[in-house]
This record gives sequence, structure tokens and C-alpha cells, in this order.
Amino acid sequence: MHESEKKCIGIDVGGTSVKIGLFETDGTLLFKWEVPTRKEEGGRYILEDVAASIREVLTEKEIHLSDILGAGMGIPGPVLPDGYVEVCVNLGWRDVNPQKELSAMLDNIPVKSGNDANVAALGEMWRGGGMGFTDIVMVTLGTGVGGGIIIDEKIIAGKHGLGGEIGHIHIRDEEWEHCNCGGVGCVEQIASATGIAREARRRMAGEETPSVLRQYGDDVTAKDVLDAAKAGDELALSVVETVGRYLGMALAGIAMTVDPEMFVIGGGVSKAGQFLIDIIDKYYQHYSPISQNKGIIGLAKLGNDAGIYGAARLVLG
Amino acid sequence: MHESEKKCIGIDVGGTSVKIGLFETDGTLLFKWEVPTRKEEGGRYILEDVAASIREVLTEKEIHLSDILGAGMGIPGPVLPDGYVEVCVNLGWRDVNPQKELSAMLDNIPVKSGNDANVAALGEMWRGGGMGFTDIVMVTLGTGVGGGIIIDEKIIAGKHGLGGEIGHIHIRDEEWEHCNCGGVGCVEQIASATGIAREARRRMAGEETPSVLRQYGDDVTAKDVLDAAKAGDELALSVVETVGRYLGMALAGIAMTVDPEMFVIGGGVSKAGQFLIDIIDKYYQHYSPISQNKGIIGLAKLGNDAGIYGAARLVLG
Repeated sequence: MHESEKKCIGIDVGGTSVKIGLFETDGTLLFKWEVPTRKEEGGRYILEDVAASIREVLTEKEIHLSDILGAGMGIPGPVLPDGYVEVCVNLGWRDVNPQKELSAMLDNIPVKSGNDANVAALGEMWRGGGMGFTDIVMVTLGTGVGGGIIIDEKIIAGKHGLGGEIGHIHIRDEEWEHCNCGGVGCVEQIASATGIAREARRRMAGEETPSVLRQYGDDVTAKDVLDAAKAGDELALSVVETVGRYLGMALAGIAMTVDPEMFVIGGGVSKAGQFLIDIIDKYYQHYSPISQNKGIIGLAKLGNDAGIYGAARLVLG
Repeated sequence: MHESEKKCIGIDVGGTSVKIGLFETDGTLLFKWEVPTRKEEGGRYILEDVAASIREVLTEKEIHLSDILGAGMGIPGPVLPDGYVEVCVNLGWRDVNPQKELSAMLDNIPVKSGNDANVAALGEMWRGGGMGFTDIVMVTLGTGVGGGIIIDEKIIAGKHGLGGEIGHIHIRDEEWEHCNCGGVGCVEQIASATGIAREARRRMAGEETPSVLRQYGDDVTAKDVLDAAKAGDELALSVVETVGRYLGMALAGIAMTVDPEMFVIGGGVSKAGQFLIDIIDKYYQHYSPISQNKGIIGLAKLGNDAGIYGAARLVLG
């Protein structure tokens, strides 16, 4: 097999399942599959399961390990530059070097690893919403808010693994509740799905404004809020404006720091689509008047596959 | 002359004078000198003067142009990756490629260029406060607030020249006056020398607190404020705490973005020394509780020479 015909493997290790994809080096996804994440006994079986599953699929597809250029792996926690993981709470890992271990289990093919949010950002740059760009910032609006910074096609992981921790930028100075990180007023507290729902509950409790959201009471979700806002509900719209204001402010600050070509917005909340992007963009422009010539804001495209794409892209350096 | 004995030249083009330094490739400064910046006729004589002065000094020192590895140049405005400068207000330049022009004037030795604040940051990494590190963020607290981001020994200039524009991160949400950039609540409005003096004037006008600063009235300077704060003046201390709070908040956000090893604080205001650093650090820690293991804050060391050091370092790639 010619070097250019070799394949690469992308692995996205999650708390429930491990997603695995086999890719051409041009980013074409050939097949993808999942294995359950066995977290018992400090997650010691996770990599064994991954290696066994890869061997099985390759055999089935009649591909030799020697035809694999390497594997990349996204890990849900901080990863040091040499692949060392001090602790990964979600998997039970402690004091391990998963990339070294996996490589040993797969005839020493090269294995690289990185934090899952950073790796997903690399995937969106390669074949997703940021395709065609070399410098992007990805913001994932899910239960929490994750982020990844890609400059010159490389992840900025940071010297202490804090690169792209956009969810924990302090942005809302008048917040009073604490974030999981110990801070107060983090981006995650207002722009995550959890944060959006909480903001809606606060407004309902604090104002008399009639709203379709009131039927949901304390069970209101971010999706309810975004749907109602799209339909023109006044209270819901005002919540989304607040979210957009703080997120736009945060993106403006990031633009003044690393100045990417594009901000790629992903995660469950981003399913609200262009409606949400337009509101974020309005405030982003407002908080960065210094220049019109700056990064654009758009939607992620790879959904839950961003991680395997980015992990495979890690192999290419 | 062996390759390793070759020299490099660092040029820092300012609005009043151009600073030039001749360096060993290990960062030893051999000599430095200045030429006045002739801004007339769209700054067309500036590079000619620089080239003539370099030739003159080299002749005097009996060094041939062929012994020069290259020259780097810091420019007070945005510089595109290929060296193109659309407009540089301070020098009168418009639609030029100064690095190309200077190279042509100097027997085609390689010339590289960058924005002066970014280049100064590179200098501080090479031989200044950030020496020994590869990832630093420099913040220059002068009449304005400038910045530069160095990751993996390279400047993050940004795809639109906005990389490291730390002075224009929106940070003070309750500000009402406008910044020069058109924004409201920029870092520059509270942490520049101008901003610190303004904050002191506001406090004196708004409070009855007795203060040694009152003797200066509207002529109060940032230095007056910092000196008085060090001496324990209550009003001055409260101004410096406000400055430190917003600056610490901004640095915490930058740490959550690019996670450098060190923040290097320079510029006239930084002459207040460790006293100021301690106050900034207190708030920096407060606004980034997610981890204790993160970039430190310290003082710049090269003063006005940071620009020529960084420019010379550009040559080494």
C-alpha cells in the first residue's frame, strides 16, 4: 500500500462509549463504530477494549495494522504534551499515558492524544464548519461549555492544559452563584444548556411578563427557551439576548487575543441554528468595534463525529 | 565568518525615532543606536534613513552585509503575514511592504517584520522577563495598553492583525466613556497610564476621602497614583485595586484561552514593580480558580529595548 493510501484511526473516548472511525488521510470517513466504556477498576479495560475492537474491525475489513499511519485519541480531561494524563475523572484514569499504552497494544503504531474539546475543534477545522481555514476557535454549547483553539492547523493546548477553556472565562460580573470550577460568572454559567434554562427560571421568578415558558415551570429546558424565542416569546427572547450578549462579549475578547478566521459554534444549544448565531454576532460586533475585518461566526457541522475526525487529524501532525 | 558567527539586526520603528540594534544570534546586544523618524511625505524617507544608517554603522565596525543573517523590524501598526502594511497612521505609510523595500536597500538580506507590540513580546521571551519560556503573553501598560502573544516561540499575529490586541478586550461592563477604538469598557480605558489617572480624577470628584492626590488636581498622573498607593493612601490604593481587578480578570480570561507559562507586564506603569504585580495577581487568581497550575505574572526586563531584541529574534524564525 502506498503511503498516500494508508489510513488513520480516530478515537473519541467518552464516559459512556468510545467512538472510533477509520479515515482516509484526506479526511474521508470510511467506517465508524462504538464500544462501551468500561469504567470499572479505574478504567483499566478501556484501552484493551479499544485495541481489540480495532483489530477485529481491521481484520473484518481486510486491512493490516501496517496499513495504518497512526491513531489519534480525544480524552475527556487534561492531557500533557507527551500524552500523560494525571487524572481523568470521567474515566477513572489516574497517572497514565494512554497514547503510549494504546500504541503498545497495536504493534507500536504511532498514537497521539489530546483533550476531547480541543480535538473536536481540530475535526471541525479539517472537515467541518471551519473547513478551509487554518485558524479557528470552536465553542461547544452543551451541558457545559467547552472550547478549542486551532492556530495554524495546530491545537493550542496550553502549557498546563488550560488552552481553550472558554467556558471558564469570567464574563458576567454581576453573577452570584458559583460555577463548578469554583469561579463566579463563567461563560458556562450563562451560555450552556444548563445556564440558559437557569436564566429562564430566574426571569420567570423575577418578572410578571407572560410567557409560553411558564407552562414548563422549573423543568424548562434550553431547547424550550430557544424555540419560544424563535416564535417571538418576549421573555424567552430576552433570555437569548442575554446569552448572546455575554457569549458575543467573550468571543470579541478571544478575537482580540488569537484573532481566528472563524468561530465555530457547536453542541446541543447550537441546534437553534442561524437564529442564535445572528444574536451572538450582533453582540460580538458591538464588543469589537476596532475592526470590521475579523473572524466570522458560524455553525459546527460534524455533530458528535467531530471528535473522531479531529483525533484522526492528530495523526497527520 | 561561520554561520554561527553571523549577526542579526533588530529595528524598532517608532513615531519619533527608529531604534536599531546589532545582535549575536544568541541574543547578545553588540551595539544599538537611533535615527530620527522622518515622517514627511508619507514617511517615504524612513527606510532609506534606516538602510543608510545600518550601512554606515557596519562599515565603521568593519562588518560586511554578507555577515548579516537578516534584519527584523517592528512596525507601529498592523502587518500582514507577507509583510504588507495597508496603513500605518503613526508613520504616514500606506499600501507598502516595508520588509521587501528594506531588503532591496540592503543587498537583499532577508528582512522580516511584525507589529511592534508583538515583536516586543518576542524580545521579552528571548532575553527579557520571559526568558526560558516558550509561551508568554506580554502586556504593555503605557499611554495605551498593548499586547503580544507568543506560543511555541512564535508570535500569534492573527489572521487580521488583531492578535494580542489585549488593550481592546471589553472588560469593564459599567464603563460609559468611549475608547479610541470605538468600544466602551476596554482594558486600555482602566489599565493604561491615561486610564489610571482618569480613574483617580473620577474618585476625587466623586468621593470626600482625603488623599495626597488632591494636591495634583486634574494633573494627577498614573505615577502619582501608584506612588501614593505604595505609601498607603486610601483613595490611591482603591484606584490601584480597581485597575488590578480588571487587569487580573483580563489575564485570567487570556489564561483560559492560550494558557501561557508567563504574563510579562511592561510599559511605564509597570515601573511600580512587584507592588503592582501582587495586586494584579490577587485578582488573576480570584478569576481563574479552576487550577493553581497556570501561568505566573512577572515584570518585563528589557524596557524600550524589547522591540530591537524581538525584531532581531524574528530573523531566527
